[in-house]
Amino acid sequence: MNSMNVPDIIVSRLPVYLRALQFMAETGNTTTSSQELGEKVGISAAQIRKDLSQFGEFGKQGTGYHIPFLIDRLLQILKVERIWDVALVGMGELGHAILRYQGFVNRGFRIVACYDSDPAKIGTKVDVFTIEDVNSLVPNVRSAGIKMAMLCVPASAAQPVTDKLVEAGVKGILNYAPVSLSVPNDVRVQYIDPVIGLQRMAYYLSGK
Amino acid sequence: MNSMNVPDIIVSRLPVYLRALQFMAETGNTTTSSQELGEKVGISAAQIRKDLSQFGEFGKQGTGYHIPFLIDRLLQILKVERIWDVALVGMGELGHAILRYQGFVNRGFRIVACYDSDPAKIGTKVDVFTIEDVNSLVPNVRSAGIKMAMLCVPASAAQPVTDKLVEAGVKGILNYAPVSLSVPNDVRVQYIDPVIGLQRMAYYLSGK
Repeated sequence: MNSMNVPDIIVSRLPVYLRALQFMAETGNTTTSSQELGEKVGISAAQIRKDLSQFGEFGKQGTGYHIPFLIDRLLQILKVERIWDVALVGMGELGHAILRYQGFVNRGFRIVACYDSDPAKIGTKVDVFTIEDVNSLVPNVRSAGIKMAMLCVPASAAQPVTDKLVEAGVKGILNYAPVSLSVPNDVRVQYIDPVIGLQRMAYYLSGK
Repeated sequence: MNSMNVPDIIVSRLPVYLRALQFMAETGNTTTSSQELGEKVGISAAQIRKDLSQFGEFGKQGTGYHIPFLIDRLLQILKVERIWDVALVGMGELGHAILRYQGFVNRGFRIVACYDSDPAKIGTKVDVFTIEDVNSLVPNVRSAGIKMAMLCVPASAAQPVTDKLVEAGVKGILNYAPVSLSVPNDVRVQYIDPVIGLQRMAYYLSGK
């Protein structure tokens, strides 16, 4: 099982399956089927079986999937059975909302440092965090071994900050700024751009 | 050209092409190639040509794409050459950040109403908006003809509020709450869940 051989489109669906399974587990379910899971996530049962088959045998014909087992395997496959440290850059309103969001730690991630370039913000506290100077990002992130970052800076600052993150050894960037980032091949970027989701839905709307 | 015949996976890429093309236009470019566009968005040139060919002929062999023309066509195809009204539900920190986000209107959307269930918030002003009672959502959204909504409520409130939005005639929901929503077939949901993006990247990280 060489993870690099699995198409990224399949990888992209695994977190969605995991979220739905964890929700089922929280509501007291212990088994499910590809049909039921498919209805929850809007993906066909056949596609789910095909996706999961890339990683081994998880279900039995007729008895379906054991939810806790499938959750454990997906956590391992996605490498989120551990907690990854994440740096947050850009402490505007969105940065504050993200910093206070409670949903990271029980899903594999915790914010461990936050940065801004505004002298009025640097050194101030937000909950347990002290906002650090973005100019100290490279040595600090590198020495802490942080591999992931969330980017909430204005569009104009996104690429320069990305360059710092790359220099610091970050390999995964969740980008909230509405611009495409240039990164080396060994660095991945995921975009959180609400307009992309809105435009994708507008396509299906009938005009009024 | 029946829009319903185009696979959703292709539709999902069009807003990404549009964003990159608009960025190129802003920086003064008037022509591009599928190669150049592909490098900007991380999608192969062949895939881009194939995707665009679903909607007609946009480029010429050897001369590439005329950026303003391709932008106009994508705006039309995605139905964002007009401005869609959007309702925002859930006025916590994230709701406030979204309300103040400047990037919607020049990309096809504007927030026209915001709702919360907290009596302490209802009736208060945020910029030019007055926070409305979520209990008045169904009649107000319906009479305003609003077809799109952004959902920033806690996970536990997401499905009940979704039911209200559907009852009010909303056909597209951008969901920030980390739960899967049940909606009728003619309603679309796009999920904004930062953990999905983080988990997808974690898959590719080598453990330390």
